[in-house]
Amino acid sequence: VTANQPPRRAEVIGTGLIGGSVAAALRRSGWHVTGSDSDADTLEQALTMGVLDAVGTDSEAELAVVAVPVGSVEEAAAGPLERGAVVTDVGSVKAPVVEAVDHPRFVGGHPMAGSEALGVQGARADLFEGATWALTPTGTTDPEALALVHGVVRSLGAEVVTLAPAQHDRLVATVSHVPHLAAATLMGVADERASEHAALLRLAAGGFRDMTRIAAGDPGIWQDICRDNRDAILEVLDGYLESLGDMRRIVAEGRSEALLERLGDAQLARRSLPTGAPKPEELVEVRIPVPDRPGELAAVTSLATDLGVNVYDIEVAHSAGAGGGLLILVVAEDSAPAFAEGLTAGGRHPSVHPLGDST
Amino acid sequence: VTANQPPRRAEVIGTGLIGGSVAAALRRSGWHVTGSDSDADTLEQALTMGVLDAVGTDSEAELAVVAVPVGSVEEAAAGPLERGAVVTDVGSVKAPVVEAVDHPRFVGGHPMAGSEALGVQGARADLFEGATWALTPTGTTDPEALALVHGVVRSLGAEVVTLAPAQHDRLVATVSHVPHLAAATLMGVADERASEHAALLRLAAGGFRDMTRIAAGDPGIWQDICRDNRDAILEVLDGYLESLGDMRRIVAEGRSEALLERLGDAQLARRSLPTGAPKPEELVEVRIPVPDRPGELAAVTSLATDLGVNVYDIEVAHSAGAGGGLLILVVAEDSAPAFAEGLTAGGRHPSVHPLGDST
Repeated sequence: VTANQPPRRAEVIGTGLIGGSVAAALRRSGWHVTGSDSDADTLEQALTMGVLDAVGTDSEAELAVVAVPVGSVEEAAAGPLERGAVVTDVGSVKAPVVEAVDHPRFVGGHPMAGSEALGVQGARADLFEGATWALTPTGTTDPEALALVHGVVRSLGAEVVTLAPAQHDRLVATVSHVPHLAAATLMGVADERASEHAALLRLAAGGFRDMTRIAAGDPGIWQDICRDNRDAILEVLDGYLESLGDMRRIVAEGRSEALLERLGDAQLARRSLPTGAPKPEELVEVRIPVPDRPGELAAVTSLATDLGVNVYDIEVAHSAGAGGGLLILVVAEDSAPAFAEGLTAGGRHPSVHPLGDST
Repeated sequence: VTANQPPRRAEVIGTGLIGGSVAAALRRSGWHVTGSDSDADTLEQALTMGVLDAVGTDSEAELAVVAVPVGSVEEAAAGPLERGAVVTDVGSVKAPVVEAVDHPRFVGGHPMAGSEALGVQGARADLFEGATWALTPTGTTDPEALALVHGVVRSLGAEVVTLAPAQHDRLVATVSHVPHLAAATLMGVADERASEHAALLRLAAGGFRDMTRIAAGDPGIWQDICRDNRDAILEVLDGYLESLGDMRRIVAEGRSEALLERLGDAQLARRSLPTGAPKPEELVEVRIPVPDRPGELAAVTSLATDLGVNVYDIEVAHSAGAGGGLLILVVAEDSAPAFAEGLTAGGRHPSVHPLGDST
């Protein structure tokens, strides 16, 4: 941004913890941010905190971030979509949202950050630094809309994972929703026994505290999540119950080797949890000429997801001629060969370049 | 300790992570510590690290700390008990141990600390500061042996909880053993799905990481624990499975209010987990004249546990006359009236005094 350029303009609808943090992060990056909220006190506080430039709607906003409950996203997204903005949301369930909104300029999103603090008081411009932020384009998503949202999310410090909406919902059931229910249930079991033995909770060392920490979060958000993502949650919960039942049998039957194997596998998996993003020198660009029509980018990002290739950045470059463009996807160098091979197998003509290569 | 007094002498049998840390903490407090270990390399490393003064047995040791697997405690405790020492252990299951050893000078113990690091390399003199350390006296435990161990444990910076052995085993199944199995199982479920969707583990945010952290610990210790504490683990695991099944039905039937109630209860319980010990000004002494015979101290500490009264310190003062003594138990001031009432109801004559009162 030079002194002569006007700031980019965004609208944030719903200025609670996540919406307020998005607004704060955008402002810190130089955006002009207009906000609205159904709760007048929240909006007032967002203004007082300096999280917003203005209150209301902004017909010039190129981006609108809808940070309201899943069931209200459709209604909140309508205005900005009509005004020509690219719209994204932050709901923790995606299939019902993208089905309801269904617009080329709508890109479903889900930042995996900040569930313990409450309300705009907890809003922080750095909330998303290092966090993972899922985006869920569909076959009808405008590639430029996705590229815009992808770029903005990256500029807030988050790592992007692109997923199909239904796939996203199953995965967050596995790593977020069912773990929350499991932690709360475990806390409940301990608490029940604590009423018989006051000493119990004093025995609760770091492991128990770690494991139940998420149960301290706001219970209010889970009614919506358990309704909107019910099928995926039940599927994963059934898998967990079955696996715990296996574990019970292993203990009951004293199958020491099977126990060691299960716990050893879990140890290895836990220690292998990915942390952070690759360094720039470990990244490359994969360039793919594509016809200029919807669905092309989604096909490419879906392939990347299927192959376990994470896309760190997306750019859509239009060629000078008509009817075509160039997708530039930034991926880890060690994942590029398999990705290029998959693209070639699908009839595309990818090329791999060093990051920022100008050839 | 003045310059003219010889140091107190202790023996540590098994100088791995916990034994090595006890040895280091004792040395830091001025004790002379002799150590032994079935593994020559471990013992060598303990010496190199300065965790021990000497290697072998010590016929003059007043205290022996046995830090070997639960199944080996009986054999390891025999020598020091024969030499006249007070002996304690650090195993995570207590009923089988105290049943096997069954000696007035043996006091079962279990420090709730440090399960992730491995071996003597991880030994630290400050490992027990602020940790909870369970002691499990029985009806035949010598009060002075318990008071000695209690005082030493306190001097290492830990908070003591006294419990009956079987009660201890049920409580640790609830706050430690079953949580470990639950975390490892959850990690296993996620890992299984991760092989289908490489993106999954990148979505795992702080909550999932917290919840599965304990699954990264050494799987090797769990074979013994699951064998030695099998019945308590199965009982608690069944309660957890039943409660998770209830949660599943609540989600499946969309019972939003029941969900909110369960999660709200868990939130409250998690936020109420006790942290740290009371300040000295919140403590009082409860003094209880007792006949000088085994079982008296155990009866008193069991009553305290039943009433939810935690004992922060124990002293056994012998009166000048024959056949009797004075137990001094330090408890939180707000728990003293109920404790005194219970003691009186049991035919004892307690009195409550400010901490360090010399009257």
